Amino acid sequence: MVDRIKTVTIKDVAKHANVSVGTVSRVLAKNATVKQPLLIRVNKSIELLGYKPNLAARALRANKDDVLGLVLPDITNPFFAQVAKEIELEAARHGLAVILASSFDDHEKEARQVRAILDRSPTGIIVIPSTDSLSFELPETIPIITIDRPVSNVHEGVFADQELGAALAADHVFELGHRNIVYIAGPKDTIVSEQRKQGFSARIKELCKGDPAFKLSVHHGLFDYEAGEKVARLVLENNSGSRPTAIVAASDQQAIGALREARDIGVIVPTELSIVGFDDIALANIVVPRLTTIRQPIEALAKTAVKRIIDPNSNEADLDLTCNLIVRTSTTKAPQ
Amino acid sequence: MVDRIKTVTIKDVAKHANVSVGTVSRVLAKNATVKQPLLIRVNKSIELLGYKPNLAARALRANKDDVLGLVLPDITNPFFAQVAKEIELEAARHGLAVILASSFDDHEKEARQVRAILDRSPTGIIVIPSTDSLSFELPETIPIITIDRPVSNVHEGVFADQELGAALAADHVFELGHRNIVYIAGPKDTIVSEQRKQGFSARIKELCKGDPAFKLSVHHGLFDYEAGEKVARLVLENNSGSRPTAIVAASDQQAIGALREARDIGVIVPTELSIVGFDDIALANIVVPRLTTIRQPIEALAKTAVKRIIDPNSNEADLDLTCNLIVRTSTTKAPQ
Repeated sequence: MVDRIKTVTIKDVAKHANVSVGTVSRVLAKNATVKQPLLIRVNKSIELLGYKPNLAARALRANKDDVLGLVLPDITNPFFAQVAKEIELEAARHGLAVILASSFDDHEKEARQVRAILDRSPTGIIVIPSTDSLSFELPETIPIITIDRPVSNVHEGVFADQELGAALAADHVFELGHRNIVYIAGPKDTIVSEQRKQGFSARIKELCKGDPAFKLSVHHGLFDYEAGEKVARLVLENNSGSRPTAIVAASDQQAIGALREARDIGVIVPTELSIVGFDDIALANIVVPRLTTIRQPIEALAKTAVKRIIDPNSNEADLDLTCNLIVRTSTTKAPQ
Repeated sequence: MVDRIKTVTIKDVAKHANVSVGTVSRVLAKNATVKQPLLIRVNKSIELLGYKPNLAARALRANKDDVLGLVLPDITNPFFAQVAKEIELEAARHGLAVILASSFDDHEKEARQVRAILDRSPTGIIVIPSTDSLSFELPETIPIITIDRPVSNVHEGVFADQELGAALAADHVFELGHRNIVYIAGPKDTIVSEQRKQGFSARIKELCKGDPAFKLSVHHGLFDYEAGEKVARLVLENNSGSRPTAIVAASDQQAIGALREARDIGVIVPTELSIVGFDDIALANIVVPRLTTIRQPIEALAKTAVKRIIDPNSNEADLDLTCNLIVRTSTTKAPQ
């Protein structure tokens, strides 16, 4: 009987060196971003195990594990589509294909989608969560990263500072003199919606403290066009006396829906009503009038998430994940 | 020495019965859509080979082959995002996960993406092609279907009748009295762009034959917002004397870009200028004014493509793939 020689794989090396497959792969590719101590450790494991990268290359190529799962609420939401595009671009740079699955904001469907992808032993999964916690047990061996929206039971998340972003919108409408303001929040069960609402309302209340004319009314809805239309209809139609002069929304889609509705009702934006969005999707710069909004760092979010999947132990500095105010023509001074 | 018993798989059954794995799977699921002769053939193979569906179920579940590749130009194009969503929904109904890859309208990248997915032995690949032919050798064993845009070297394509759809736009602007018309076509190297252009210009010329006032000018650009803005700027700014009264575009994105530009220049839509799009993306019903467009049967396109992947031999009747004119408020009678 002849001993069968087991081929040493890149995974064996990764396990031996206690690093991710991505790190070994970067060492093999002589990628300069690998830190010196890691480099030494990986090379030592390669030597000890007798790993032959050239022989293993074909096996690696045929390995179907090099996929990255991406679970998001709905690809037809332009913000998620932009995030997906950036994730795909970044994953491709690391030789990973992207498996896309939609949760349609359904908690159970989200759990099923994640489990189905886990069955394929992916390199990792990036989730844009549908609600504030993931309703499945988190695997120990496969990294799961949430992006854009934090959830309560996953520590590894990549997101911009939503409260700070929303506070920028508060600063902007306050400086323009708006004191009768409607805020359109997202669904109540998403942390990201609560954070934006909190960031906006805390700042605007602080700024307007003691002003007897100050009025803030908050409404909730989905992050879509329809929610924006609905809230705008409600607050513009039945409010001819004390009509708000500014609508600040938790998403660009809501803001664009509000623009649409204002037009239908005959309220002129921005002279009679200023509107602010959140995200800065491509469309924000196309609608009439162009939308003032809070820009999320979409590319940096995507790159950082993929980086963490590939090398969970990386302690490279994160990219800049700050939100910025982009002033366009949907906002102006409050009418006298 | 003991003979090892090879487990009979669903693939063996499919091969033996000369049908697709999807058909066997539908027979096993007692799906009523399988035709009687096929049903008998598959059941006979199951019996002859001694296939045990229950025993094989676990193996099937762990099989990483059950993925469907989807290669499209750019997921941030709202039309493609809607197609991707419908494909994902339909694929999920058949237990298939979707691997998404973008070509960014790059011929070579498209070929690389398809080859990378082929390496994973997918059930099939759906391609929305970047140009008029696919620059890779087509595999014999894995079905590749093009959707939306026909290409010259793939016979299996699923698309609506683009010429007929564009002719509906011609009928509409003609009936409204427009005789000075600008047509925005897509890129010259895509068949879909040529078909729409051909369908529109042939019909409008036929309708306006002999009318000395008739004028049609055709411009080419990408299918995006920017192309629409650019062409609109060109034809509206330098044409104060003989300004067109209608712009008909090969995509909603172009039409929405033209809307944007008309607004900037101060040309009022629809009283001074009618605008027609193509596709009927969700946004068409949100922009101001709401866009008259040619609706593509997105859901039927997606369902038909997935069906053909799963069961290439299916001769079920295709779903209705007709385009329809959707009249909204971006078109009206030509100014006198």
